[in-house]
Formats: sequence, C-alpha cells, structure tokens
Amino acid sequence: MRPTKLGIIGLGAIGGSLALEAKRAGIERVLGWSPEPAERVAAAQQGALDDAPARATDVARAVELLVLAAPPAANLALLDALAPHLGAGAVITDVKRAIVARAEARGLGPRFAGGHPIAGTHGHGFRAARLDLFKNAVVYITPTRDGDGAAREIAHFWEDVLATHPVLIDAAQHDRQLALTSHLPQAVASLLARYLAHATPPGATFGPGARDATRLAASEPALWTEIFLMNRDELLPALRSLEEPLGELERALEAGDAAGLAAWLRRGAEWRRRLDA
Amino acid sequence: MRPTKLGIIGLGAIGGSLALEAKRAGIERVLGWSPEPAERVAAAQQGALDDAPARATDVARAVELLVLAAPPAANLALLDALAPHLGAGAVITDVKRAIVARAEARGLGPRFAGGHPIAGTHGHGFRAARLDLFKNAVVYITPTRDGDGAAREIAHFWEDVLATHPVLIDAAQHDRQLALTSHLPQAVASLLARYLAHATPPGATFGPGARDATRLAASEPALWTEIFLMNRDELLPALRSLEEPLGELERALEAGDAAGLAAWLRRGAEWRRRLDA
Repeated sequence: MRPTKLGIIGLGAIGGSLALEAKRAGIERVLGWSPEPAERVAAAQQGALDDAPARATDVARAVELLVLAAPPAANLALLDALAPHLGAGAVITDVKRAIVARAEARGLGPRFAGGHPIAGTHGHGFRAARLDLFKNAVVYITPTRDGDGAAREIAHFWEDVLATHPVLIDAAQHDRQLALTSHLPQAVASLLARYLAHATPPGATFGPGARDATRLAASEPALWTEIFLMNRDELLPALRSLEEPLGELERALEAGDAAGLAAWLRRGAEWRRRLDA
Repeated sequence: MRPTKLGIIGLGAIGGSLALEAKRAGIERVLGWSPEPAERVAAAQQGALDDAPARATDVARAVELLVLAAPPAANLALLDALAPHLGAGAVITDVKRAIVARAEARGLGPRFAGGHPIAGTHGHGFRAARLDLFKNAVVYITPTRDGDGAAREIAHFWEDVLATHPVLIDAAQHDRQLALTSHLPQAVASLLARYLAHATPPGATFGPGARDATRLAASEPALWTEIFLMNRDELLPALRSLEEPLGELERALEAGDAAGLAAWLRRGAEWRRRLDA
C-alpha cells in the first residue's frame, strides 16, 4: 500500500526517521504523535510531519496506515488504546517488535502485521532520527493468523515507500532469530562496557576497536530492559551458551595452547569476514 | 627526532600506514622490508618506500630510526637478529607491543623504546595500510630503564612526523591497560562471533549493531593468538571477571527484575556515552 495519510505514534530515532523518509517519498500527509510535546514540535519544524495533534487518537482516526513506533510495552498499551479509534479499513503495524498475539486478541488480525526494520542507532529521541536510517535494510514482516492481506500491504509499504527489503517471517521465528542477531550483541556490548566502566583506570585510551565493540552499550537502558524482558525465553539460553566458548578460550590461554587459540579465533574470523563479503 | 632515513620492518596495516605517512611528512628516505616479496613490491609501487631491499639487515644498517612492525613474536626474533647490524647511534622501536625487557637484555636499553599507536584495523597486510590510520591517535611510549633519551626521541618522532599524541607509560602498566582496552574487547568480539557463527540460521540478517559488536572478530587469528599469549597473565583475570556481571544479567532476566536490568544496562550506557562526549 501507498497511503495518502500515514500516522506515526512515537517520534524517536525509528519513528522520526520513518516520518522524514515518508515525506521524502512524497506521502501526502504524515501525522505524528509523541507523548513529549517538544518532540512533536521538533518533528513538525523539521518537515517530518504535516500535522502533530496533541492526542494520539486524532492521529489514529485520520490515517490509512498507522505505525506504532513507541517502545515495546508502550506499543502494546497503544494498540489497546487506539484500536477503537481506527478508521474503517485502516491498517496497523509496529516497527520494533511483533505484537501479533495482542493484535489477534483485539480482533485486529486481518488489519495488522508486525514490522521490524533491521536498522537502528544507539541514539535516542527525534534528534537521532535521520534520512537513510533504513537504507537497504531488511525489514521483517510478521503476519497474524488471518492477516496475510495486511502483511502484503505493509510489506509493499516498506518496499515501495521506504525502499527497504521486506521479508515475511513467522513471529516466533522472528523472536528466536532476533535474540541472536540483535539482543545478544546488545547484551554482550553492555557486559563489556559495564566491566570496562568499573575496571579501567581514568584516562585510559580506547581505540576504534573497543569503541565499536561497546557502541551498542550506549543504547537507551529503559528501551532495552523492555526488549530483553519480552524476549527473555530466547535471550537467556543464548547468554548461558556463551559460557562454553568462554571457558574454551580461558582453558586455551591457561594451557598456552597456540594452535587451540588460533582455531578458536579462526571460527569467528571466518564468519565475520563472510558477513562483509 | 626527525630521521632522514627511516627503516620499517613489516609492511602490514601498521608498518605500511607508517611508511605512507612518513613519506607524506617528507621523510627523505623510507626503507622497508617484509618477508613477503609481494608486499615489498606493492609498498614500493605505491610510493610508501624509497627502497625495499631483499634483506632486513640492509634496512637495519642504513637507517637512523628502525621501527619493528612485525607481529609480536617476530619482533622479538627480529630484535635479536638485527641488533648486530644497527648503525652507530640508530634508535629502535616497535609499534605493537613493548619488547622492552628483551631490548634491555640485548644491551639496547639506551637506544630503544616501545611504541604502540592506539589505532588499527581488522584488515591484514599492506592492502590494509592507509594514510590517516594514526590520525589523532594516542601512542603509548614505553621507555627502558636507561632509555629516557631514546623514549623522548621516539615520542618526538610520533608527534612531529606522524602528528599523533605520544604518552609515556611504564611497560607493565601498558600491558595491564591494554588487556582491558584492547585485548578484552577483541576476545569478547571473537566470543560473540564464534557463538553466532554456530547458532544463527543461514540467511539471518545482522544490522549495524551486531556488525560493530563483532567487527574485531575479523582480525587476523595468528596475530591475536600471539598477543593473547604474551599478555595472558593480564587477560585471563579480565576474562574471568566477566562471569560476575554476566551472572547478574542472567539472574535479573530470570527474576523479571526490570529495575535491576535497567540499572545493569545504565552503568555501561553512561560510561559508553561519556567515551563519545
């Protein structure tokens, strides 16, 4: 679908970038709402929005496609609050985490699909929004049981309006995969940063490698608390699974086992080099 | 010091970048050697070197400042092999790890200082060399017991010729600090990559966060095997110390402790945000 009127609830890095991109793509009216009046003003002033009403329900009522771009727990609450106000025929999606089961329970199955662009920033708020944040990104689309039509509409929106690459995926498989490709890297970066914060002497210098390895740790703690808790059944086993290769590394170091160490490092090196190939 | 004749042993990312930078800075003659003839040819053809003799001793004999830019174990062997061939008054340094004790044992104390630019790349070989690799980098200079003069000369070289920021530091303190700021991030990035290589389904998509968190894992396994083994007395306790905060994270997830999770994440977030401030 290519909506004439697009609504975006939440004007942070994701919602704000989406608004900027939609205006660039020529969407006629982009309406946005944030609980923070200052974010609404900033987004409107920077041309990301045509209108920024004070109430989210006024956005929900007016649009053909409503994108929930708030943090995950807020999106669940917003789905409940806005469902009665949606226009006839309006389609709904989120941008961060599939809230497919809730949409089904609310009877919104045929009008909903989850959407999750694999792109982002550790920045926070509308000031972190920018054009091209989603450039060439893969976007996971998670259909409801009876929502194939809505999923196709929303996939088409991401492809046609935002020039990304939508991929349809089952919601459970999405959560399993994201635990590995996103939540675990976040947890590991935060683990490293937490330890370095405590262990390094003041004035120690960090090169580009350490900065990249810890960059995700700067992400918003409140947001990631929600994401971790919502997906903890997948994330916890992944975290526990790190203990085995960590132990292998420690034993190879203890034994001074150069061949073992090189083999241990090689597996990750080959994988990571392929990722850039 | 600003040498008229500079010698560089090892023409990988570090040695190669140093040669390019020295030529740009107007050093009259830059001589280089690599055990790989193809690397010598590539560096000479790209204007990084004025001469690339087939024997390292011919470089050592001809220069006022000799930089050992091979991997750590090779640097130790090269120090032994080249010491008898150094010109009178020539000063020696390495670029990757302090080999201060060996220099002292060889009677080179007054003519040696360790040097370690906190800059680098996961790339490998002369093809990874580039101008500006060291731009604005801090460079740790580790003096020998009787080498304050040489340390000052080498610090001046890094400042004047290469426009970096040299910092004098005790060799033991250097190793302790690097275990945290460089070797541990490398180990953690490799740990994450090793696990993801094994656990993620084919075709899974990795966003910029996961890519940054694992970028270091692409580094050369043979080089990092050496670095890890040489500094294992510092690296091993740091690795073991990760187990406590990892356990804290797992317990907060098990308990569904949102406040505990947010606090756990916040410590690393504050630290990492300050790093960019």
